Amino acid sequence: MGDRDGTAVARHVASEYVDRLERRDWAGVEALLADDVVYELPQTRERIRGRAAFLRFNIEYPGDWHLRLRRVVADGRFAALWLDVHVGAEQQDACVWLELTGDGLISRVTDYWPEPYDPPPGRAHLVERW
Amino acid sequence: MGDRDGTAVARHVASEYVDRLERRDWAGVEALLADDVVYELPQTRERIRGRAAFLRFNIEYPGDWHLRLRRVVADGRFAALWLDVHVGAEQQDACVWLELTGDGLISRVTDYWPEPYDPPPGRAHLVERW
Repeated sequence: MGDRDGTAVARHVASEYVDRLERRDWAGVEALLADDVVYELPQTRERIRGRAAFLRFNIEYPGDWHLRLRRVVADGRFAALWLDVHVGAEQQDACVWLELTGDGLISRVTDYWPEPYDPPPGRAHLVERW
Repeated sequence: MGDRDGTAVARHVASEYVDRLERRDWAGVEALLADDVVYELPQTRERIRGRAAFLRFNIEYPGDWHLRLRRVVADGRFAALWLDVHVGAEQQDACVWLELTGDGLISRVTDYWPEPYDPPPGRAHLVERW
């Protein structure tokens, strides 16, 4: 697959990944994943290996979670997803890095779930808050 | 600029952005930025407007910080940067979203600085830790 085709596939797969998760279309999510997909959460140093465990992780994930795609950036066999996530009344952004096989299956997912924190001192003269 | 050229420019600008910051090449960083660049830190709800303030923010940023590019994903006028950041003995990953003008200048930077946290209970049967 050329870079251009690869990018189009990655962009499509990345969007479908979010859409099918949001719809709890588990068979559809499964169809996007390589059998030996690796899922990593660097903030907690957690790793999940394999499609079955990854699906179970998502199926069992607690709370009424909803995903909205803010941006997808795709480049060859890589994609980055910027998500707006709601769990009940809570809102959080997420950053997700995808890596695809040459066949367009997701082989690696790396999730970041950045949490709010207070600004450090010393820069209030440069910033506005919202 | 076509999408393909745009992507090549975005990929180059994104890499240069990290490289010039790392080298404290402030004139070089300035040359990559639109005059009215907007920099946002959603975790602290901080916003900085304009090239001058954004440069000052980086110049004044405390600590012996170093940036290593783990991945750049570029797509048209967008790019996503996955960074490995060291400040003294501390290590942290960062996720950065860039938006470029049609002229290839950075018009928007959104930084996420995800911090470590403990895994929630109930999923230890699915994960390994590292």
